[in-house]
Amino acid sequence: MEKEFIAWLTEQYPTNDRRVVFGIGDDAAVLNIGQNQLVVTTDSIADGVHFDSSIHNLEQIGWKAIGVNFSDVAAMGAWPLAVTVNFICPRDFRLEDLQQLFGGMKRMADRFETPIVGGDTNRWDGKLVVGATVIGTAVEQPKTGFWKMFGGQPGDWILVSGSLGGSITDQHIAFEPRLELARHLIQNYFIHAATDITDSLAIDLSAIAIKSHCGFRIMEDRIPVSQAALEMAKSGERTPLEHALFDGEDFELIICAPPDVATGILGDDRIGSQLSHIGQLTDGDQFEICAMQNSPPRLLEIRGYVH
Amino acid sequence: MEKEFIAWLTEQYPTNDRRVVFGIGDDAAVLNIGQNQLVVTTDSIADGVHFDSSIHNLEQIGWKAIGVNFSDVAAMGAWPLAVTVNFICPRDFRLEDLQQLFGGMKRMADRFETPIVGGDTNRWDGKLVVGATVIGTAVEQPKTGFWKMFGGQPGDWILVSGSLGGSITDQHIAFEPRLELARHLIQNYFIHAATDITDSLAIDLSAIAIKSHCGFRIMEDRIPVSQAALEMAKSGERTPLEHALFDGEDFELIICAPPDVATGILGDDRIGSQLSHIGQLTDGDQFEICAMQNSPPRLLEIRGYVH
Repeated sequence: MEKEFIAWLTEQYPTNDRRVVFGIGDDAAVLNIGQNQLVVTTDSIADGVHFDSSIHNLEQIGWKAIGVNFSDVAAMGAWPLAVTVNFICPRDFRLEDLQQLFGGMKRMADRFETPIVGGDTNRWDGKLVVGATVIGTAVEQPKTGFWKMFGGQPGDWILVSGSLGGSITDQHIAFEPRLELARHLIQNYFIHAATDITDSLAIDLSAIAIKSHCGFRIMEDRIPVSQAALEMAKSGERTPLEHALFDGEDFELIICAPPDVATGILGDDRIGSQLSHIGQLTDGDQFEICAMQNSPPRLLEIRGYVH
Repeated sequence: MEKEFIAWLTEQYPTNDRRVVFGIGDDAAVLNIGQNQLVVTTDSIADGVHFDSSIHNLEQIGWKAIGVNFSDVAAMGAWPLAVTVNFICPRDFRLEDLQQLFGGMKRMADRFETPIVGGDTNRWDGKLVVGATVIGTAVEQPKTGFWKMFGGQPGDWILVSGSLGGSITDQHIAFEPRLELARHLIQNYFIHAATDITDSLAIDLSAIAIKSHCGFRIMEDRIPVSQAALEMAKSGERTPLEHALFDGEDFELIICAPPDVATGILGDDRIGSQLSHIGQLTDGDQFEICAMQNSPPRLLEIRGYVH
């Protein structure tokens, strides 16, 4: 339903406001403020959906609440400037609980030297909901403006950071937003399009392709499969590759760049090893996967993580 | 508990970041962005706490979700630039429900020509929670920087907008944020301190006084009592004055300014009639109320709206 709602929004609510560079539909909105541009993003996480308070402690939950927003900021090639937070707490929440929750938030915010500047706390009869909004700015000396999802070109190589799949084991709550990687990339390379993996590699890459009016072809043997995906596959119904393609909340980056730029990135001593070349954007609108380079492609059926 | 938590936060988390002009503890945070300053504020409203989905329709709820944030922006003397929203919806929420909720948000945002630039939608087994974050900027040609709660001076006259009390009947869900009034005031007058009434006149005025290291004395016969407060008093235990002093969610402005400035404001044809002079800030730390000017004061016991 969120998809239908966003389609409805985008259609009936175009942003013709000169203060808005782009609005609903990317990882973050971009605003004009005098000579500067800002990004703004907001995400909430809820008990039983994005975390499980019977498994995760409040420190971890706080870390994730800020982290999911920082991951969106990284996906824009931006850097966080300030965070506001809001909690809706169960009635039995104690001061120590709030302190522990805030401790996790602060640890994430401090990790990227970003102040938490405001917030709002309420209680209710429901379960814990933690939201955050992050304002971000351009890094120093970027090569391009903020990354958009719709900038991809046919022929662009598709790179992903880290390894994918099985995040439910641990990665989804304990991940590191790829802000430093994004900063290095935007300071040094002309990237066409980017996003972060929240729904799944398959869904988020499809979103880049659709918005860029491209198709894609990816190679099974190039997709970086995580140790967690390998472990889960031993006792489940999905293969490691299926976990890497269809699991959600990896919070890794997908980057699209021309082949020469991508080759430069992969050979970059500082960050090349963090990225895998998994395929390319194509003319047309087909989403294809093949066993390896030059082997015959088949259509990729898109499935993803449903919270 | 929120009070204890914020005290703990303010103590152990000072903002020594040069990007932060002021952070936690006022109606909104103020940030430096290049040559510009921004305000940022966030507030969530939850079913059963700030609204009641068995009484209020989704359009009203959307209106309030943005309105409470705009009221904070008005309390800074700022103007909204952009809004992000987030919904956590019950499982049985339909697309039409989201559209109706968003319709109310958009009506409030359009009322002040402010774009909604991003958002986040999730579902869960709990009740509806609607949050918003608003970024605001200075109005054109302000006389002063953004208003703070801590700028009051002994001798400042205390002005309040509108009429107070009994908002539970209607005003709390259908109010108009005082943005235009605030804009006119900051463009024309040197105001020392301001806030909006969310908890109650008594609590929010106390907060200004405490932060400004002042006391106050207010006059019963000057406090503008709303029609709703008069009606409620007929069938309840509180007097109309008690409703005006202690009820929450009026979303009116409290303004503190030197007597000559305040006199000018009250005589201003465009806005004077919207404001009442209810008393003044005093040396010391006592919160006093008297029947009328020059009658003997007694201490005001602070009680307020508990959500």
